[in-house]
Amino acid sequence: MYCPLLVRAHSRQTGASGAELMNLILLFKEDFVDGTSRVRLEGRRLKHVLEVHRARVGDELCVGLADDLIGTGRVILLDRGSLEMEVRLEQKPPDPLPATLILALPRPKVLRRVLRSVTAMGVKRIVLLNAYRVERSYWSSPVLGPGSLRQELITGLEQSRDTMMPEVLVQPLFKLFVEDELPRLSKDTLTLVAHPGASSPCPRGAQGPVTLAVGPEGGFIPYEIEKLESAGFSPVHCGERILNVEAAVPALLARLW
Amino acid sequence: MYCPLLVRAHSRQTGASGAELMNLILLFKEDFVDGTSRVRLEGRRLKHVLEVHRARVGDELCVGLADDLIGTGRVILLDRGSLEMEVRLEQKPPDPLPATLILALPRPKVLRRVLRSVTAMGVKRIVLLNAYRVERSYWSSPVLGPGSLRQELITGLEQSRDTMMPEVLVQPLFKLFVEDELPRLSKDTLTLVAHPGASSPCPRGAQGPVTLAVGPEGGFIPYEIEKLESAGFSPVHCGERILNVEAAVPALLARLW
Repeated sequence: MYCPLLVRAHSRQTGASGAELMNLILLFKEDFVDGTSRVRLEGRRLKHVLEVHRARVGDELCVGLADDLIGTGRVILLDRGSLEMEVRLEQKPPDPLPATLILALPRPKVLRRVLRSVTAMGVKRIVLLNAYRVERSYWSSPVLGPGSLRQELITGLEQSRDTMMPEVLVQPLFKLFVEDELPRLSKDTLTLVAHPGASSPCPRGAQGPVTLAVGPEGGFIPYEIEKLESAGFSPVHCGERILNVEAAVPALLARLW
Repeated sequence: MYCPLLVRAHSRQTGASGAELMNLILLFKEDFVDGTSRVRLEGRRLKHVLEVHRARVGDELCVGLADDLIGTGRVILLDRGSLEMEVRLEQKPPDPLPATLILALPRPKVLRRVLRSVTAMGVKRIVLLNAYRVERSYWSSPVLGPGSLRQELITGLEQSRDTMMPEVLVQPLFKLFVEDELPRLSKDTLTLVAHPGASSPCPRGAQGPVTLAVGPEGGFIPYEIEKLESAGFSPVHCGERILNVEAAVPALLARLW
């Protein structure tokens, strides 16, 4: 199903907020007026709907319920402080990517963008892992707070019209995770680690689920590659060029699916 | 050739500058001490080499001459204010992508990142085009100044160990460009426009050169799609999900090559 985005013909300001475009308004159970199919929006979502979509009473907007179906919301009431919609949910969200992404924790700004991108691409499990070349200070970034992580995931879902919230695992202990958790986590998947020095290229068109590990800027160190190899991971490269994390991750996912 | 990056074993700070990693130090003719194979670095590059690579006398660094060969530079002199290297240039830079990217001008911050990513991926011609949903204010951004554009391209080349500077064309008049310039520019290439509503998927593995047009957040409007179709462009989608420009462009390029 292609759920058309309402963008007013007279509005050029689709990117005006400086944030991602909300192609779907993600709803939560608590947005519903008790026992009805009516939702009430306030705050961030209301602002976006008013300023970017420029919604009016009678308009239909693309909506979705978190971890549930997508559909449309018809605006039935609108004022400066709140908006009410009559909601019909009837379609399944897009298929997830059968991918687990293991990402050496990037610097906070990059982390925000990568979380949004990979959520938008449909990744449903993301592991944020320590590595030798991860700066220690990144681990104390407020981006890692649960509210902040969740907001990036929501933005990614809204961008790509999805409702299924990814799971994010935070793993500050490389060795412990790779030895004790990773074999179980990556069982029955194709296990790849992106590594510029690898002799094999990243395959095109994965047949089944994949666990993909991506190192920090500067790469995993040889010890880390060895540990990942012991856990069954095959190093693969993505061509002669070294890409930064923000370009490498979408490029690898697009190559695999 | 895999030209190993010098990263000191004791240095975790490969991303410390908050910028992309300089995997190759891009040199210009004017860096050379007249009539020798010696270069002198100052400013931004010196700072990076000292703080991130932590270079010492005798170290070999990966270098490349703009629009020319890549090779190594051996540090022969080092103090706080300058660094001298003896340079040997002997290898060709990585192959370019046979791609022209036509990009509806994104907001300035996104433009910076996309320029770096696509340069790192090997795109050698980038057209920044106006479109209905491009905010007018983006056209007066300082990022579009030639010095600023050039710096983003240099960063992308340094990231991916390339030396061949892309060409950037700035086209603020959509209709004039698409009618008068685009047919010539895209002659004998596969001409695609990324459009979420398209009925065909973006092909995998392009056989020859491609001209790829990517709209603004919110997409090209129907009139613009029609004009591009009249210029020979086929709308293609990238799956059910709508991606933002920063993820969509690397994903499309990775799918095509």
